[in-house]
Amino acid sequence: MNADLIIKNAYVYLTFRQCFVKRDVAVAGDRFYQILPKIPCAGEGEKSDLIGADTQIVDAGGSYMIPGLIDIHMHIESSMTYPEEFSRIVLPQGTTTVVADAHEIANVFGLEGIRTFMDQKTDLDVFYAIPSSVPATDWEFETAGAEIGEAETAQLLKDERVLCLGEVMNFQQLTKEAEPETKIRRLVRLCRDARGRDIRLEGHCPKISGPDLNRFIAAGIDADHTQQTSESVIEKSDLGMFLELQHKSLTPEVVKTVDDHQLYENIALVTDDTMPDLLMEGQLNRIVHAAIANGMPVEKAIYCATYTPARRMHLDDRGMIAPGKLADFILLDDLQTISPRSVYKSGKCVEKKDWQASHYFPKRFYQSVLCRKAEPADFVLTAERADCRSVLTNVMKIHEFGTMTEAVQREIPVRDGVICWQEAGLCLVVIYERHGKNGNVARGLVEGAFSLAGAVATTWSHDSHNLFVLGNSPEDMLAAQQYLIAIQGGCAVAENGAVTAKAWLPVAGILSDGPVEEIARELGEVRAAMERLGYRNNNVIMSMATLALPVSPALKLTDRGLLDVKTQQPVPLVAACI
Amino acid sequence: MNADLIIKNAYVYLTFRQCFVKRDVAVAGDRFYQILPKIPCAGEGEKSDLIGADTQIVDAGGSYMIPGLIDIHMHIESSMTYPEEFSRIVLPQGTTTVVADAHEIANVFGLEGIRTFMDQKTDLDVFYAIPSSVPATDWEFETAGAEIGEAETAQLLKDERVLCLGEVMNFQQLTKEAEPETKIRRLVRLCRDARGRDIRLEGHCPKISGPDLNRFIAAGIDADHTQQTSESVIEKSDLGMFLELQHKSLTPEVVKTVDDHQLYENIALVTDDTMPDLLMEGQLNRIVHAAIANGMPVEKAIYCATYTPARRMHLDDRGMIAPGKLADFILLDDLQTISPRSVYKSGKCVEKKDWQASHYFPKRFYQSVLCRKAEPADFVLTAERADCRSVLTNVMKIHEFGTMTEAVQREIPVRDGVICWQEAGLCLVVIYERHGKNGNVARGLVEGAFSLAGAVATTWSHDSHNLFVLGNSPEDMLAAQQYLIAIQGGCAVAENGAVTAKAWLPVAGILSDGPVEEIARELGEVRAAMERLGYRNNNVIMSMATLALPVSPALKLTDRGLLDVKTQQPVPLVAACI
Repeated sequence: MNADLIIKNAYVYLTFRQCFVKRDVAVAGDRFYQILPKIPCAGEGEKSDLIGADTQIVDAGGSYMIPGLIDIHMHIESSMTYPEEFSRIVLPQGTTTVVADAHEIANVFGLEGIRTFMDQKTDLDVFYAIPSSVPATDWEFETAGAEIGEAETAQLLKDERVLCLGEVMNFQQLTKEAEPETKIRRLVRLCRDARGRDIRLEGHCPKISGPDLNRFIAAGIDADHTQQTSESVIEKSDLGMFLELQHKSLTPEVVKTVDDHQLYENIALVTDDTMPDLLMEGQLNRIVHAAIANGMPVEKAIYCATYTPARRMHLDDRGMIAPGKLADFILLDDLQTISPRSVYKSGKCVEKKDWQASHYFPKRFYQSVLCRKAEPADFVLTAERADCRSVLTNVMKIHEFGTMTEAVQREIPVRDGVICWQEAGLCLVVIYERHGKNGNVARGLVEGAFSLAGAVATTWSHDSHNLFVLGNSPEDMLAAQQYLIAIQGGCAVAENGAVTAKAWLPVAGILSDGPVEEIARELGEVRAAMERLGYRNNNVIMSMATLALPVSPALKLTDRGLLDVKTQQPVPLVAACI
Repeated sequence: MNADLIIKNAYVYLTFRQCFVKRDVAVAGDRFYQILPKIPCAGEGEKSDLIGADTQIVDAGGSYMIPGLIDIHMHIESSMTYPEEFSRIVLPQGTTTVVADAHEIANVFGLEGIRTFMDQKTDLDVFYAIPSSVPATDWEFETAGAEIGEAETAQLLKDERVLCLGEVMNFQQLTKEAEPETKIRRLVRLCRDARGRDIRLEGHCPKISGPDLNRFIAAGIDADHTQQTSESVIEKSDLGMFLELQHKSLTPEVVKTVDDHQLYENIALVTDDTMPDLLMEGQLNRIVHAAIANGMPVEKAIYCATYTPARRMHLDDRGMIAPGKLADFILLDDLQTISPRSVYKSGKCVEKKDWQASHYFPKRFYQSVLCRKAEPADFVLTAERADCRSVLTNVMKIHEFGTMTEAVQREIPVRDGVICWQEAGLCLVVIYERHGKNGNVARGLVEGAFSLAGAVATTWSHDSHNLFVLGNSPEDMLAAQQYLIAIQGGCAVAENGAVTAKAWLPVAGILSDGPVEEIARELGEVRAAMERLGYRNNNVIMSMATLALPVSPALKLTDRGLLDVKTQQPVPLVAACI
């Protein structure tokens, strides 16, 4: 049989030996066909019978040839875009397969939202995780746009592109011994019953250890992608957990621990969330680079971005350069930056494409911000008793690193029954339920956000994506909130009563339907505006957008009020009148 | 939750770190539940809440605790017994899971034969491979008792205990480019269509390399369990092949190659064929011991007999001591001999059992030797031309090591038209088709078998299991053949006109239905009798029984005559009259 393509003179990554060896590689159709020390062409002795009239011959000129990158834990929505457009950007960066957990679009439009993703044509191979935690907690704690329950899960399990149950995060529901039946346990059982061995159960278990961790894993959830420490890497590995390391886990200490104990077989490199502006700089290749920069040998980093992730997901048809496997590969000039010279998907060279207008989303996806406009009274907090002098309040304190809040208490003066939160140097958060379900409005206080006067509002607000407004100036909060209703979704910063920066996310209030380049630029402007107002965090947008996420420590605000994440108990804004 | 069982003070094998660490292990039901540095009992400080009134506590006393052994390439019939009895013997030896390729019983009774295996209750977990090559070649080359074709394969694929397509061995049919449609290609496609990712395709490709090997793997067959050399290990690993190493592959050179290149992730230890007498000495634990004895670090040998085989077969519920996995484990006093102190299957301690009479096989399985009795004329070879003085014959030469024959030519005197093969120091082989299909009788000559007068006959004759008689004394050949018809299957040695040793295999002519101890003793007697007659080989029974196997080099005899294995062309017994 003639080959369709022959790559000559490449240093080919041999997965099982984890080394580079000079080889010629023949591709037939979408698969690797033969990998040989030499495939002679015309003028090199007896011409190989692999070479026919139509065989394309590419001289790699001594460059490195590695398998296409495989990202098994990620959310396309984190890049505020849709699969087709995501594919256009990341395929030339070397990512050839992803397992997407579409749990943001699911929180807004449920199964219908996921289907609008799965129906899209992409050159990239997109497999799917079933969002296991939509809503993130329970309806009594927050109002999402939709739910992924048993019926939706059963539907999704029928699709062979569905590889796993995605990040099970409600530790309490999974392991509470007093309650044998919880939703998440039913979903786990449903997966096993429907698909037997052919399904993976993926977890999200930050800061859980000891007997609790044992119980979590015993329930069947044997992977975790949250932030790791050296200690958690050892403990989780010893308990049989597969670790998906994202950027924040790839510290020199963690990389050293992985290397000291040669734990490469049970780790994979993943992206989890990549903001659109960061996406323009790279996707999984950026994480591979970070791993190398922090001490991981390049051969190991490649292994953990190609072979181990494929194996974890039972994608045995890819992840290595070997006969019969999908011919997804990258040619690289050097092994440090992982910047592809060229990328091949299913045997075809990837060409950079222009953006195409999306036609995937129904009209109602563009009309998803269904709450009332803000009124000045929304930003006035009143004390229960008109005669009190001050109130002790429960406040979410944000830090300059990470997305977890700290629960603190602050005393605030009260005048004429009004809590003077601005005088206390705090910001107010108001959340408007925006899925048209109950019109809830909830309020909380934040320390450590803005130092100058202004506000930010967003409908991209994990995980329920209600309309979230944060600020220290009622005028700006009003302007930002009303602007988002007018444009039906996005992120907006207001100063001096007017919007000064915005990122438009008209699809379900969380996605752009334009080119990533555009939303990346807009988001950069929003971030810069927030920083101008004094917001300090290594991940400005995400730390703000997760103030409403009730599964990430410690004190969070949903449309139903403040919640202690650990105990899952409501917390009053005013602890005491003084 | 209380644990049902707690193992204290064990050095537990931690799979991902491949080391032993002192741990206490809690088991609940059939699964591991918690693995902790310490689970305090009464008198050890605050008693763990894992311990209730019914919790059994076992002090391992510092012994080693490893996962149960998993053998993913083996044939129960090679031990001349049936699954229930096999389970009785091997579970106390530490084998807790096998993937059985029942291709011997399939060659006699097809799907019905396999079903009689699958219907048996075993304490051991028995998964199945679909016998891909029944008959081993084609009906034009040999007469088997049955065929496993597309219909049978489709039936088997519906059973969730079926994990793979077993040892695809017909290289020619798989890779011949001129013939796009062959039976084996249809079976491969059928497996993929029916089960997608959840099926493995296992190969058998001895001595294949270069472009041929590439084509074999490109067809989707990415595992091999045949005899390896250092070179084949490297070449096959580089091409992405998973290697299942059996005893004959575990030479010091091969083990060193695996270690030098750290290829442990893509190898597993397997038994393939274990004769009944050898089975009494051990099953997979014997292979683990051999690997260690030949230089494999013990932690690696355990890894490759527990975790890598489970992973290869997508048996993600077992193969390690970790929460949620099946509580199959072994306690060992030392790490050299792998002789279990005790074995636990699904959380229960394995007790040695007595043999139970089988009731699994229908009556017709005991009436399977359906050929005529031998007559003296069967052992007379006549020349075509009465006037020739001698004939040049094609002869199968056997060696003292291995089961491959060498094709040689020998000149034999002819007197009165009769070929005097006895005078040439050769043995005669006569094969009687015994499945009641066509009554074929075929003859061949063997060099290097017996030096003293005698004969051996067997119905355990790979792969078609026709009645095979080998000897240099017509009187003894007659006696042995007729004896096997009388007892309806087995193996018999005759000397001086009478049977002097026999192993009775009444089920399908290939299995004993008694205790393994008994057939082991009988087989030992047969082997001893053959050796007394001068038969010299490292594997006496197998080298004799594979003289009829037309997929193993080089010249073989089936009921249809001599066959050149490589070319799959018939070969005449008499090459020329002189």
